[in-house]
Amino acid sequence: MLIEKSCKEFVEVLASKEPVPGGGGAAALVGAIGMALGNMVGNLTVGKEKYKDVEEEVKGIMEEATVLQERLLALVDRDAECFKEVAEVYKMPKGTESEKKARDEAMQVALKRACTVPLDIMKNTGEAIRLQRRLADIGSKLAISDVGVGVLCLKAALLGGKLNVDINLKDIKDEEFVKKCQQEMDLLIKHGVEVADETISIVEQRLKN
Amino acid sequence: MLIEKSCKEFVEVLASKEPVPGGGGAAALVGAIGMALGNMVGNLTVGKEKYKDVEEEVKGIMEEATVLQERLLALVDRDAECFKEVAEVYKMPKGTESEKKARDEAMQVALKRACTVPLDIMKNTGEAIRLQRRLADIGSKLAISDVGVGVLCLKAALLGGKLNVDINLKDIKDEEFVKKCQQEMDLLIKHGVEVADETISIVEQRLKN
Repeated sequence: MLIEKSCKEFVEVLASKEPVPGGGGAAALVGAIGMALGNMVGNLTVGKEKYKDVEEEVKGIMEEATVLQERLLALVDRDAECFKEVAEVYKMPKGTESEKKARDEAMQVALKRACTVPLDIMKNTGEAIRLQRRLADIGSKLAISDVGVGVLCLKAALLGGKLNVDINLKDIKDEEFVKKCQQEMDLLIKHGVEVADETISIVEQRLKN
Repeated sequence: MLIEKSCKEFVEVLASKEPVPGGGGAAALVGAIGMALGNMVGNLTVGKEKYKDVEEEVKGIMEEATVLQERLLALVDRDAECFKEVAEVYKMPKGTESEKKARDEAMQVALKRACTVPLDIMKNTGEAIRLQRRLADIGSKLAISDVGVGVLCLKAALLGGKLNVDINLKDIKDEEFVKKCQQEMDLLIKHGVEVADETISIVEQRLKN
């Protein structure tokens, strides 16, 4: 599994010619890092007298954050699996008309499946951004810069997810599917970017005081 | 070393109460991931007939990218060392006036040193963004989304680096030092964000065609 590789090795394999990991897996890992920072802020808030009033709420956020963090980590390897499926289809024969037809059909199926992973990255980072937004308000001020770095990573993963859906959508012929994906992404981006930018503003404000 | 941990373990330790890694180390790793994606695009461009004319230039970019990627990886652990230094100072006695004075002085030294790591993250990601900008023009179109994800990660690392400098600057009393850091950061942010956003626009354009 890719996420079992050391950070150093992951970065080195990413930089290489190797087919996986690619941009999708990188976005998922950066999303997991972003959510982990939120979780850390939760850990540094809970148990502190100063933040006693919000302790239960922060614990709830951390439970959700742990789920999202694990899902984003799992998406690193799921992206690689989907990429390999597409690569397999590329190797299919295309000598005769019927071979071409079979290959084209298999490609459409593989590309659609490959879209699901970055779409899931976007959905999970969108949720994660919402949690960071709340942590910007109630998380320990000593760790407020970590909320900021976390949400910056999540925003990068959200927008990076979209680029990975887009590059697959280019070759998908099912217009209905393409339209549905685009609409879903538009909503996720609009809402996610807005909340992320709001979170960063709050972090900057709390850093000043 | 932190970068020898598996990605999964890094994310889990990051999420925990453990003092390191924190936001600085996370930003450095996300920067290394961003640069690695540029390196990967280089690897997918070199050796292709279609991109023969730019092959030498791409090879040059990859050499620079490898240096930046390694530096950013090294900054993950350097950030942890600096953080530990600050934590050590926090433990110093502050019972008597002279103990207080020694502690305050040691704190100022440790905080200044702690600023150097996120500043280095910013400098290196700034350089890395410049390389991605060129790859957006001349890198293989098949990997254009990876240039985009790469530059998004680098932008997050650049802005995240700033938040980590800012949180240290809050407690630094040397106004000259604070001013110099802020001026340096303003330039790095202004230029880096501009070039990153330009790169993303080019990626989006090339994705459409």
